[in-house]
Amino acid sequence: MLHRSKKGIAMADRIVVLGGGFGGMYAARALRKRLGKSVRVELINADNYFVFQPLLPEVGAGSITPGHAVSPLRFLLRGVFVRKAQIDSVDFERRIVTVFQGIQRRPTELRYDHLVIALGQGVDLSRTPGLEEHALKMKTLEDARRLREHVIEQLEHAQVSQVPETKRGALTFTVIGGGFSGVETVGEMKELIDRSLKFYPRIDPSEVRVQLVEFAPRILNEMPERLARYAADHLTRHGVELKLNTGVASATGTQLVTTTGEVIDTRTIVATIGNAPLPVVARMGLPSQHGRIAVDRALRVRGHQNVWALGDCALIPLKEGAEARGDFAPPTAQFAVREAKRIARNIAAAVRGKPVQPFAYRSRGSLASLGAHRGVAEVFGLQLTGFPAWVLWRSYYLALLPGMGTRIKVMVNWTLDMLGARSVVQLRALPRPPMRYAHFREGDIVYEAGHRSDGFYSVISGAVEMERKDPVTGETHLRRIGPGGHFGERLILGATRRKTTVRAVEDTRVLVLNREEFLMLAEGFPAFREYFRPYMEARGAEWPPKAG
Amino acid sequence: MLHRSKKGIAMADRIVVLGGGFGGMYAARALRKRLGKSVRVELINADNYFVFQPLLPEVGAGSITPGHAVSPLRFLLRGVFVRKAQIDSVDFERRIVTVFQGIQRRPTELRYDHLVIALGQGVDLSRTPGLEEHALKMKTLEDARRLREHVIEQLEHAQVSQVPETKRGALTFTVIGGGFSGVETVGEMKELIDRSLKFYPRIDPSEVRVQLVEFAPRILNEMPERLARYAADHLTRHGVELKLNTGVASATGTQLVTTTGEVIDTRTIVATIGNAPLPVVARMGLPSQHGRIAVDRALRVRGHQNVWALGDCALIPLKEGAEARGDFAPPTAQFAVREAKRIARNIAAAVRGKPVQPFAYRSRGSLASLGAHRGVAEVFGLQLTGFPAWVLWRSYYLALLPGMGTRIKVMVNWTLDMLGARSVVQLRALPRPPMRYAHFREGDIVYEAGHRSDGFYSVISGAVEMERKDPVTGETHLRRIGPGGHFGERLILGATRRKTTVRAVEDTRVLVLNREEFLMLAEGFPAFREYFRPYMEARGAEWPPKAG
Repeated sequence: MLHRSKKGIAMADRIVVLGGGFGGMYAARALRKRLGKSVRVELINADNYFVFQPLLPEVGAGSITPGHAVSPLRFLLRGVFVRKAQIDSVDFERRIVTVFQGIQRRPTELRYDHLVIALGQGVDLSRTPGLEEHALKMKTLEDARRLREHVIEQLEHAQVSQVPETKRGALTFTVIGGGFSGVETVGEMKELIDRSLKFYPRIDPSEVRVQLVEFAPRILNEMPERLARYAADHLTRHGVELKLNTGVASATGTQLVTTTGEVIDTRTIVATIGNAPLPVVARMGLPSQHGRIAVDRALRVRGHQNVWALGDCALIPLKEGAEARGDFAPPTAQFAVREAKRIARNIAAAVRGKPVQPFAYRSRGSLASLGAHRGVAEVFGLQLTGFPAWVLWRSYYLALLPGMGTRIKVMVNWTLDMLGARSVVQLRALPRPPMRYAHFREGDIVYEAGHRSDGFYSVISGAVEMERKDPVTGETHLRRIGPGGHFGERLILGATRRKTTVRAVEDTRVLVLNREEFLMLAEGFPAFREYFRPYMEARGAEWPPKAG
Repeated sequence: MLHRSKKGIAMADRIVVLGGGFGGMYAARALRKRLGKSVRVELINADNYFVFQPLLPEVGAGSITPGHAVSPLRFLLRGVFVRKAQIDSVDFERRIVTVFQGIQRRPTELRYDHLVIALGQGVDLSRTPGLEEHALKMKTLEDARRLREHVIEQLEHAQVSQVPETKRGALTFTVIGGGFSGVETVGEMKELIDRSLKFYPRIDPSEVRVQLVEFAPRILNEMPERLARYAADHLTRHGVELKLNTGVASATGTQLVTTTGEVIDTRTIVATIGNAPLPVVARMGLPSQHGRIAVDRALRVRGHQNVWALGDCALIPLKEGAEARGDFAPPTAQFAVREAKRIARNIAAAVRGKPVQPFAYRSRGSLASLGAHRGVAEVFGLQLTGFPAWVLWRSYYLALLPGMGTRIKVMVNWTLDMLGARSVVQLRALPRPPMRYAHFREGDIVYEAGHRSDGFYSVISGAVEMERKDPVTGETHLRRIGPGGHFGERLILGATRRKTTVRAVEDTRVLVLNREEFLMLAEGFPAFREYFRPYMEARGAEWPPKAG
């Protein structure tokens, strides 16, 4: 609600910031400072913490714990009303943000006079078959944590497995994307593995394969050629295989196929590619370009007087008539922090009826960590490599960390990590996989006779062939199962071992349920239960079974 | 395989220990030490870490991080072969343990000469309606972590909620069971809340309700009366409500009903009751008593020459003709550590053809922490209370922690916690609830018109009434939905808000699916898809919808 103060100046009394990353958090801080107590500044975020994005590869490698890569928003934002909520929609006409709070199902409407959108970007891997289903990401704290647990799980498995192809797949680690995130992730991951191997005597270092797949002819595209070459040499020297000029054609739970036709046995695929607008941002229907919200040079969303955007979700022109990639602000923490200061100044000016200023900033440089205490850095035109660059990287991010408490904690932990062995504790057992899609390539074995029965399968597209050996005659029976068909139902009847071998005879997409889910559906849906009754009773089963 | 050595002594070359808790971990250590390199000692555990069970309430309250309550088994057990695997079954005839390793589906068979079972106990809450579905547990590290996140989530929600009954439910915290685990959990939880409130200015301390529900007329049944009374007084003085002589009749997602007929609005129920054999132990079919494996005084499973058991999963008589509860070893870490030493001596004796000895140990005392730096302790007949007891508690468990590294880390963290504010970071967003059962009491509202559409419901037992206001005539239509019926299908068509209000008219059990799961089932199962086609098409929908 804009109203006139006694002195006749346009006033705004509610500013709402969406998102608590670098852009949103620093914008809320700066707004609070500039506008004083007369204006209510509110920040809405799905998590109650600020996550220090550049540290995610370190969390993924266990050199710091997840708790040390974050800081409570309530702690950083004194004087700002912090609301932990899911953003549902924005009504730009009525100037209302609708959110859902916690498990509460009643929507809450929040009025704003100025709105700041700083929600960042999401990931969309759906363009590559199987990648969405089978790749790990590196976007959230949870992603980073999951990566660490997954890597340790592979070492545990390789230590005890007696199946050579399983061991090979478990010990092959693939990172897709040679940007900052991919390079830092692959470097840190290699270090984690190297430092953990002493606990896994049955794994020979030569069996470990860590690779970085990049579509472009070089890595670290945003950095000068010389530094990128240093980084590439460093990674190669430390045993990371670089696959340049290489894209990903498809992925399954056990393999990755490159655009060069190579088929790699790997159970670890980390995708650092595929930036895409978050669904909540896409739903807002704001003008966009290259998948980001189009703003003017003053960071105001085109066509809106009181809606602003910054950070990764916004496309911010650095000059008039911006067109080339370099004419727009890059999606980095360094820029987001500067954009936040500008947006606060401009909103304060708009509130007071004064003119706004264009955002102007020139990068002070860029830094990347490569693992094993090495890095590359370009600052104020100076190029650094190796240990000094790594120290600079750490110091820079330490300085950027908000809050002295967090800074000290991270420093202490980094020091402890350099001194001692890294813990190989795998904190969370990977949960029993719930209902999920899986992708198999022609020729892939879905399961073999004697395997553990771990899922009920329904074919969505493609086809599989089931091979069953008659226990009496010894004859082999083959059965083709296409779309709409299903297999693995003996699991539901309590079988713990497969009696048949199933192989994909085409590229195949299936839906997999575990036994618990299947029985819940049979209990909850009479139609589901009755559909399967003939199958189950033909197999001599009581249906539905007595005890879940 | 028992065979004769050159000197004619019976030899065993493979000892397998199942379980890596206090009993199993210390047994493997002692076996390694006693038997030297001639015998292979292998320990199998589902996790690759030892969890320091007595610290779980501290993890639940965030005074230490999960990583500091655990230690890698590979680190603690040099010389022991550690296998991270799921135990499937034991064939006592063939002396084979069958396990599954990681995501590998091929079973692995492991031969043993002596088997040590130290798998602990599980939890079964199914006797109380709704408790299994709606209560948190305190048995694993993951449970403890989840509790902390859940408590912070309630504070976040109460801070922003404008619905009084929602706020009341969010700020009511209930712990069931007045044993060590329940008392420590409730004390630590109260401290966590008290210390966090300064970040939540909209929560008045008087709105917080923390309660402990215990069926018996007193808490800490294993401790002397005087100490239990001190503990009760301390908790009461610090604002914990004690409900003695009170059992739990039923639970829902928002309420708890006691056996005294009280209905409590609470969104946090922590159950520390319901110990039951783990399914894997029950499946072994060993002789059992009171749900635990029956062993003789030498810790040998009755009827088996080479199978041994200790810790919480075993019922260990402390004297001949044991019958009363006090005649058996209590399920504590203190006893498990002693049992481990005895079992290693006895197995070494059995291997060498020498006589085994009965387990004999008298408790040196017991300790409990009460939160807020207070505790109760009984040691060597001495009774301590308050701060000295708390210091003793911490020191004792610090001393019991295996590995100097872990000890130092825990001590540093405890110190940091005493000095600074506790972080209110809620690390993991609670995931979108997957397919699940829910329990509603007669009269409960399942959802209201205007609420977020968050699930598709199918009635298993009981009945609900759906109230729909005709938008034209303003008339109210009522529809009863009983077993086999379903409601909430507009969610599937993309609706984000409820148009009807649904109330349970009997005690009702439902299955709830989220939209994603429903669409996956519609894609994967033609029968499911076709069953729902009339419903969806009658509502003017394209079925199945184009984009998942």
